[in-house]
Order: sequence, then C-alpha cells, then structure tokens
Amino acid sequence: MIAEIVNAKKVKKTKKLMELEVKLGKKTRTVVSGIAKGFDEKDIIGKKIVLLENLFPKNLKGIESNGMVLLSKNENGNLIFIGPDSNDTESGTVIH
Amino acid sequence: MIAEIVNAKKVKKTKKLMELEVKLGKKTRTVVSGIAKGFDEKDIIGKKIVLLENLFPKNLKGIESNGMVLLSKNENGNLIFIGPDSNDTESGTVIH
Repeated sequence: MIAEIVNAKKVKKTKKLMELEVKLGKKTRTVVSGIAKGFDEKDIIGKKIVLLENLFPKNLKGIESNGMVLLSKNENGNLIFIGPDSNDTESGTVIH
Repeated sequence: MIAEIVNAKKVKKTKKLMELEVKLGKKTRTVVSGIAKGFDEKDIIGKKIVLLENLFPKNLKGIESNGMVLLSKNENGNLIFIGPDSNDTESGTVIH
C-alpha cells in the first residue's frame, strides 16, 4: 500500500532504527525501519513509500512496529525507498 | 527486484496488454502487463520498475509472461509504476 511518512525520529540507543509515523488514507500507524544510517529525519517527511501493511506487529526496542517499508539500494550501495512513480498518489492506495 | 524496461509493444488484438522486455542485471525476460491503456510504448523504455520475479510463468495470449509489474494509481485513477526513488539503481537489485 502507498504510505506517506508524516513523522520520523531516530530510535535512541540504536544506530540503524528509525521510528516512522506513516499515513495510510485517514489512518496513521507506527513503523520501525532500519533506515537511520541512510536518511535524516527531516529529509523524509512527506515522502510517499511502499508499506507492506498486513504483517503481524513486531516489537523493536520497545516500539510496536506495524508494517515493513520496502527498500532497495542505489549503485553506490546506499539505501533508497521504493515508491510510486508519481507523487500525486494518495496514501492508502493499493498496489497490485 | 528492480527491473528496467528495455522494450515494449502492445499485444495485438487486446486493449490492455503490453509485452515488455525487462532487464534484470545481465539477464532479460518477457513480462506481459495490463498497462497498454495507461502508457505509450515509447514513454516507458528505460524506466526502472519493481518486478515480482519469482512467479510461475503464465501464458497470456500466447506469450509466456515471467513476472508481475507492481502498479498503483494516482489521484486521478491513472495507472502508475512503483519504482526506486532514485534512478541510479541497477536493474537486478534486490528489494527487501
């Protein structure tokens, strides 16, 4: 599903984890993702991403994560998001 | 997996189907996708997309399709591709 990152903060006492608040249509949820080394919080607010949303919740460092962000790497090995080709996609839109 | 569209042609006698030749690293394969109403062939050559590549082959109008292209819709209901956030990603790169 297409999700929009509406808030992000690094998880304390970890190097890699970022706590994301993502919007899926009218609902928001919390997802913890291992992207803290690759991105600054301020650069990813508003980004449209792909979220696997139908997973069991997982507790990561005391935070309940509800989904998984799809990621890949660029030619330099840096993390990149997978997302819609056009930004005029509403969060909550299904991928098929 | 990240795939690059290297060739595209509409499937004759159908309205929706497009036959795509996609590159995955050093290999290419054929995928049939229902995108012919939304895209012109010439506009999508070179595009980096997300391909589900580990599916059973499927015969569509006599063409063996080896994978599925991830798609979503924009706010106007038009089809859009799902792809890497940065174009400097090599085809064949894994998504996780």
